Amino acid sequence: MRICITGAAGMIGRKLLARLAAEGTLAGKRITTVDLHDIVAPTKPEGAAFAVSTHQGDLASPGAAAALVAAKPDVIFHLAGIVSGEAEANFDLGYRVNLDGARALFDAVRAAQFSPRIVFTSSIAVFGAPFPAVIPDDFALTPLTSYGTQKAIAEALLADYTRKGIFDGIGIRLPTICVRPGKPNKAASGFFSGIIREPLNGLPADLPVSRDVVHHLASPRSAVGFLLHAAAIEGERVGPRRNLTMPGVGVSVGEQIAALRSIAGDKVVALIREAPDATVATIVAGWPTRFDAKRAHDLGFVAERTFADIIHAYIDDELGGRIAG
Amino acid sequence: MRICITGAAGMIGRKLLARLAAEGTLAGKRITTVDLHDIVAPTKPEGAAFAVSTHQGDLASPGAAAALVAAKPDVIFHLAGIVSGEAEANFDLGYRVNLDGARALFDAVRAAQFSPRIVFTSSIAVFGAPFPAVIPDDFALTPLTSYGTQKAIAEALLADYTRKGIFDGIGIRLPTICVRPGKPNKAASGFFSGIIREPLNGLPADLPVSRDVVHHLASPRSAVGFLLHAAAIEGERVGPRRNLTMPGVGVSVGEQIAALRSIAGDKVVALIREAPDATVATIVAGWPTRFDAKRAHDLGFVAERTFADIIHAYIDDELGGRIAG
Repeated sequence: MRICITGAAGMIGRKLLARLAAEGTLAGKRITTVDLHDIVAPTKPEGAAFAVSTHQGDLASPGAAAALVAAKPDVIFHLAGIVSGEAEANFDLGYRVNLDGARALFDAVRAAQFSPRIVFTSSIAVFGAPFPAVIPDDFALTPLTSYGTQKAIAEALLADYTRKGIFDGIGIRLPTICVRPGKPNKAASGFFSGIIREPLNGLPADLPVSRDVVHHLASPRSAVGFLLHAAAIEGERVGPRRNLTMPGVGVSVGEQIAALRSIAGDKVVALIREAPDATVATIVAGWPTRFDAKRAHDLGFVAERTFADIIHAYIDDELGGRIAG
Repeated sequence: MRICITGAAGMIGRKLLARLAAEGTLAGKRITTVDLHDIVAPTKPEGAAFAVSTHQGDLASPGAAAALVAAKPDVIFHLAGIVSGEAEANFDLGYRVNLDGARALFDAVRAAQFSPRIVFTSSIAVFGAPFPAVIPDDFALTPLTSYGTQKAIAEALLADYTRKGIFDGIGIRLPTICVRPGKPNKAASGFFSGIIREPLNGLPADLPVSRDVVHHLASPRSAVGFLLHAAAIEGERVGPRRNLTMPGVGVSVGEQIAALRSIAGDKVVALIREAPDATVATIVAGWPTRFDAKRAHDLGFVAERTFADIIHAYIDDELGGRIAG
């Protein structure tokens, strides 16, 4: 089996690649070659039994997507994207990468006349307030950001190209990923990870919003699990509605902090500082809260069940199972 | 006030233009100039008090959209589109006209740095089965045709460009228009008009589906009314969800025929011939049925209340108020 990954240098891409290298198989078949693409040079995984080719550049530029899929991979993970904050700040770049890049990839597959499984990472940013208490699978996509708009458009293309038999696509709407490893970033959603990650590493963390803010979260480990499951699932089971809201934990910030306290104690929680930020609070107010994700559950997608599970996944995967201090 | 109309040579475009010529004003302001665009040469209206410029060509071709909006019209009616059957048969042409054409227009407005009202004719084809008994305004867009996909994508662009202040867009999802004047066409939806129009003109008409098929219909007169109302409505009243399902009459084919009988009698109805067509029946089975269209009602969009009203609109507007035979 040959696999292609776009956005391979990103956090999820690297974790997916490490998992593929460790397992050596996907959907029960031995992986022979993996083609990696990113705007920055992607890194070959250590100790992989499969061959690796690397491609660097702008997927929307002429010929780039055609070159990437020329070897006709069996599965394409299309993870590449400009993040929400950057897509909002740079309108042209966001549309170029998140819309034109996806369309270029889909059209390159069409031109090469093969029919791979394409797993596309969409986002719960396709939804925009106001919401019902729990968001059902058939709720309208009314994004309130350019990023969410671009993801919603790529979803629509994926469904139509799949319906026409051009390829076999599955779009997975990722929850906000938490706990993201590494340093704080400037994403408006960064604090959901920061208020857990920094204290667990003995560092202070700012909390810019009220503790009653509710959001839909899943661990990086679950995100990789979603990708692997989406690569293997039978398309006929999914039917024509090819874009699925992934399961996750719908939890308030207060509940996040309570879980951190139960796992790591008061001293760790004391590192969280109230630092109200009206701009962040306004952005977050437009974001979705709780989903039922019934279709994904029924199709066998599995996430954490509690926020404590999400914290434990971070401690296990990033801290070697130990808490600092 | 300067107005631009794309798709000006189409049935709705011509009716809109005739109405503007008759009224001489839009949203209470005198119309000075109308810019017409279509892939075929649009016809200047007779007796209009305003100046008319005509543009012919492919809106997605380089420079076409920029030339069209160079005079910075106050209102743009973007009606241009490849119809459903043709978009399904010709994948590239559908995406080029219905997606790239809309995006080219939106980007030309952005480049010219003015902020017109853009009224975009979307379609209830953005929805795909399965449906609830009545489709609410916040139901997911899951089109089952390339045409519906292209309309859904243009809707998403319109909402995002509006949110960013690039222009002030209103998308109106038209019901199936009935009774369409003129000759039968090959659209799968053609029979909804044909079973009324042909008998009223003393001609036989084929009925390819079961009489219990339910669909959402509005007259051409109502469609023009929606366009005029959408051009004049305050954007702030609409809010960020800029695409609105228009009201119409949710009616079964059997109810259509009963209304025809009550208006025109048994002899006219006898011209309808049962001619089951499995292909048409399958396509129609994926189409939406009844909508509540609450938001549009609340915003003052008005359609017919009964199918008899729709028949009377056809008799008044196309037959000079008289029935043949």
